[in-house]
Amino acid sequence: MQLTPEQQAEIDDLRRQSASTLRVTRPSLEEILYIPVPVLDHGFIRVIDYMGDDAAVVQAARVSYGRGTKKVQDDAGLINYLMRHRHTTPFEMCEIKYHVKLPIFVARQWIRHRTANVNEYSARYSILDKEYYIPAPGQLAAQSSANRQGRGAVLEGEEAARVLDILKGDAERTYGHYEEMLNQDSGGSVLDDGRSGLARELARMNLTLNTYTQWYWKIDLHNLLHFLSLRADPHAQYEIRAYADAMMDLLRRWVPLTAAAFEDYRMGGAALSAKALDVVRRRLRGEDVRQADSGMSAREWRELMAVLGLE
Amino acid sequence: MQLTPEQQAEIDDLRRQSASTLRVTRPSLEEILYIPVPVLDHGFIRVIDYMGDDAAVVQAARVSYGRGTKKVQDDAGLINYLMRHRHTTPFEMCEIKYHVKLPIFVARQWIRHRTANVNEYSARYSILDKEYYIPAPGQLAAQSSANRQGRGAVLEGEEAARVLDILKGDAERTYGHYEEMLNQDSGGSVLDDGRSGLARELARMNLTLNTYTQWYWKIDLHNLLHFLSLRADPHAQYEIRAYADAMMDLLRRWVPLTAAAFEDYRMGGAALSAKALDVVRRRLRGEDVRQADSGMSAREWRELMAVLGLE
Amino acid sequence: MQLTPEQQAEIDDLRRQSASTLRVTRPSLEEILYIPVPVLDHGFIRVIDYMGDDAAVVQAARVSYGRGTKKVQDDAGLINYLMRHRHTTPFEMCEIKYHVKLPIFVARQWIRHRTANVNEYSARYSILDKEYYIPAPGQLAAQSSANRQGRGAVLEGEEAARVLDILKGDAERTYGHYEEMLNQDSGGSVLDDGRSGLARELARMNLTLNTYTQWYWKIDLHNLLHFLSLRADPHAQYEIRAYADAMMDLLRRWVPLTAAAFEDYRMGGAALSAKALDVVRRRLRGEDVRQADSGMSAREWRELMAVLGLE
Amino acid sequence: MQLTPEQQAEIDDLRRQSASTLRVTRPSLEEILYIPVPVLDHGFIRVIDYMGDDAAVVQAARVSYGRGTKKVQDDAGLINYLMRHRHTTPFEMCEIKYHVKLPIFVARQWIRHRTANVNEYSARYSILDKEYYIPAPGQLAAQSSANRQGRGAVLEGEEAARVLDILKGDAERTYGHYEEMLNQDSGGSVLDDGRSGLARELARMNLTLNTYTQWYWKIDLHNLLHFLSLRADPHAQYEIRAYADAMMDLLRRWVPLTAAAFEDYRMGGAALSAKALDVVRRRLRGEDVRQADSGMSAREWRELMAVLGLE
Repeated sequence: MQLTPEQQAEIDDLRRQSASTLRVTRPSLEEILYIPVPVLDHGFIRVIDYMGDDAAVVQAARVSYGRGTKKVQDDAGLINYLMRHRHTTPFEMCEIKYHVKLPIFVARQWIRHRTANVNEYSARYSILDKEYYIPAPGQLAAQSSANRQGRGAVLEGEEAARVLDILKGDAERTYGHYEEMLNQDSGGSVLDDGRSGLARELARMNLTLNTYTQWYWKIDLHNLLHFLSLRADPHAQYEIRAYADAMMDLLRRWVPLTAAAFEDYRMGGAALSAKALDVVRRRLRGEDVRQADSGMSAREWRELMAVLGLE
Repeated sequence: MQLTPEQQAEIDDLRRQSASTLRVTRPSLEEILYIPVPVLDHGFIRVIDYMGDDAAVVQAARVSYGRGTKKVQDDAGLINYLMRHRHTTPFEMCEIKYHVKLPIFVARQWIRHRTANVNEYSARYSILDKEYYIPAPGQLAAQSSANRQGRGAVLEGEEAARVLDILKGDAERTYGHYEEMLNQDSGGSVLDDGRSGLARELARMNLTLNTYTQWYWKIDLHNLLHFLSLRADPHAQYEIRAYADAMMDLLRRWVPLTAAAFEDYRMGGAALSAKALDVVRRRLRGEDVRQADSGMSAREWRELMAVLGLE
Repeated sequence: MQLTPEQQAEIDDLRRQSASTLRVTRPSLEEILYIPVPVLDHGFIRVIDYMGDDAAVVQAARVSYGRGTKKVQDDAGLINYLMRHRHTTPFEMCEIKYHVKLPIFVARQWIRHRTANVNEYSARYSILDKEYYIPAPGQLAAQSSANRQGRGAVLEGEEAARVLDILKGDAERTYGHYEEMLNQDSGGSVLDDGRSGLARELARMNLTLNTYTQWYWKIDLHNLLHFLSLRADPHAQYEIRAYADAMMDLLRRWVPLTAAAFEDYRMGGAALSAKALDVVRRRLRGEDVRQADSGMSAREWRELMAVLGLE
Repeated sequence: MQLTPEQQAEIDDLRRQSASTLRVTRPSLEEILYIPVPVLDHGFIRVIDYMGDDAAVVQAARVSYGRGTKKVQDDAGLINYLMRHRHTTPFEMCEIKYHVKLPIFVARQWIRHRTANVNEYSARYSILDKEYYIPAPGQLAAQSSANRQGRGAVLEGEEAARVLDILKGDAERTYGHYEEMLNQDSGGSVLDDGRSGLARELARMNLTLNTYTQWYWKIDLHNLLHFLSLRADPHAQYEIRAYADAMMDLLRRWVPLTAAAFEDYRMGGAALSAKALDVVRRRLRGEDVRQADSGMSAREWRELMAVLGLE
């Protein structure tokens, strides 16, 4: 990730403008406000603004006149209770806003989460930067043979080299043609005064899906946790998980009690079906239940045994 | 509106706790943060938290690294443009959170706006305060004869007195019975040690719809404007409009440029149908168009003439 | 529940108007289309329209040109997989529309689910029916002493009788005053030609929260399942659970495979936290873990033991 | 647009399976149910399912037991009223589901409308078809010099030819490399048994934004009208407008009264700001108001004059 001097100056400028507020404030989040956290080769995520903290969750659950409870311990207990019993509305009372730079194919997965506000950089209006994602060699995975939407072993040697060549070559070539069709380079300079240049809204269609875009993305804490439970999960595609992981770190700075409850009850936990629960109960009573007696399919049984750390 | 000394102390306490922040801050909104604005006889609305300001709208529209434009005038121009052309997503980047005390029948209209976050005081869990809305004499309107969902002339004399007697008497009586069934008074003291008391979630059903409830309500600026365009409108029921009017004042403190654009383009403006537009064009060309030649119904024609200040 | 002859005639009329369609059709749901299922003393729920079935879920998951898979067994397998792995969007492709008559305090809980479409009978525009909910004697529960939002033992004898007297008496009295203020009875006849009558939008505030209202409510299958997981749950208030239970029956007629998967994976299952999962794993390995070694609070431990059928 | 024989057979099969239903049915929409309407060079849109019709809007507005009013004319009057006064919830009671094939850059604009349900063909799971959008010569527009997000004159001669060469060449090349990296062709045949092939979720990033994708998209009538008001508008990009125009035709088949009201009150109408309305009123009174006296900017004035058909 590389910022231009102008971008860096804008960020520095924002970080010099401190003001006094009566609002809830989180010093540990203020520490990194506006500062981009690098993700992938050219991407980043940075927190632009936030509203509320753990105490605001407690305050909303109680519809109180003041702030949180008297003791942090009581706040933690109530937040754990809310998380355990899926009382979601108090978590909706906190809000966070990010600025994200990300490859278009990641943006397309991300946008499937509809309960957020988005402003994306417009390629109808402006010229996209010449930046595209090329996976690190360790991420050049083969198609998984077991899971139709998963990755297998990492490609190596010649096959890996060929993939990198293709990705780089095609991104360079299509971006070059994008500039040629626009009759402008990425800095906005006209290439040939004798031509008019294709409309931006058309020229962009020649770019590949690993081109970087950027957006402002704002979401409440409840919906953010839902996003993270899906995208910080090991089944998520690595490229979006890299962003979700960075967001988990930012979450711990913002709402540490909620983050801890989330990691205990959601990320580290498991949902058991009625049949799975029945198996667990019977096993705990000493009964030697097998798949054949469980009513579960072979695949479900395998998933359950993995969750229980058995076999 | 009357706060208990404890509630007032909590508010005073919050207003003493100033902190330093790098976030966008609005001094004119900070001035009244947490302070209840009285609405109706026992209700209020107060701003609990906010995110963003006019510059944040501009920043989002540009997906920029810094804040707004260099000049307020440029921000105003862009905000006017966004409002005029219904570019709504930049306005979604600001958020505000209120604490509201309001009669249940008003809460039922309000909640129809689904694009907001709500935490309501729970009458399953707690005992509702003994507070109910009684209209001021000037609001005791008769049913309109022209408009099935509107008000006509104000009731006077004996009929008005009778209505006030009924509303007060029934509210007193049903609340007294609520306490009797709970076997607790509004302060929580047990009335009769020999009885167990009906479950709160059941006893509440005896309360009338003018009983006050309260909630935290959080919404983004775009959806707030939509709410206000419907609820600060002369066709809205007076009781919810009283809250919307208070919110318009708070809006001007928060985002003055957006508030001005909203008042110009939405509140004070008008939407013309294709047929209405045709009438206006022809009239401006000097043609004496009448209803019969307009393709409009008598009712539509009347509405159009009123909008145009004619007849 | 009692329909007027006119209402019954309208329903009969709809059930006579059969048409031919190329759309997905569910005969077991058609059987009861438009027919009200009684709930509580005067309420009902009836299905007005629906879109899609189990095969439409499968079709959407595959973005296919045709319908479902060739075999019901394959559809079931895929639906189980989707439910287990929380792939929610295919379930959003089915939609159902109900007409519901329900007490206002139930409507207020219900409406907290925002991801649905609602049209409620307007008491600004029309006069509400003279119908209010009075709990059956077996539902007159005392406040729970263990759970602040739960019910304890059923009230009996004099205390029960007194509660019923209050509820009936206050509902009669406030409705009578509603008519008097309107200067119209529930059938719309003017009571006294010499008076104008209070505006409907004001008079309604005198009604108690057990008055029945009605609405059209439309929701997609995914969000319906979420609603049911909360409202058909034993922790939900009995009065709303009565509606949710009726909806579970309708669900089985509409999408039997989805209903079965939902009952296995959601309704009958359990979510274990990371700490709870650790306890289960250690117990299954034969370790005698106790609360003190679990990192769980006393309350969490109690909840876990109940889930596991231990102690 | 070209369907494979298998796809055509699936569609034919669905159109043979007529069933009897008690639901609201629209014969004019049934006529074209499942049949793809071609859009752009390889895209299409087809209606897969629908719920409700004009009468259902009326029924919802009245929360009635039966269907619509007795006369079509009354239904039209009520629908016009609802549209004029922005009563939106009755329109939410109708729902429609489409299957759409569209270029990725169009899908990215489309998905910004969040109030819909979507299932997109997964390029993590499957291989995308070898189909990409190449604009017709009449659509090869230059960048507008007046409007940063608009099109100017059509490119001609050599410049046009060069653009077409680039778009075709790069799409062919990047798709060919996609197959090579997957080690599979678009039909799924393995190219080289000695290689494993890059994961699908990675290989897709080499495709250009004019590659076609497809999805199921389901939306209620109110939100559909909002989508159409933005995307069937002359300011929308031509490529998405082509889909919106096809949807307008389908809308007229589905809900002709609503479509007519929409075209009168929204598509053909105009929103005047308070200042614009003041200008119109003064002009109608014979006053010769000019921009300088209007409080409007030069740009706003120009827009107003165009709306009024003046100057």
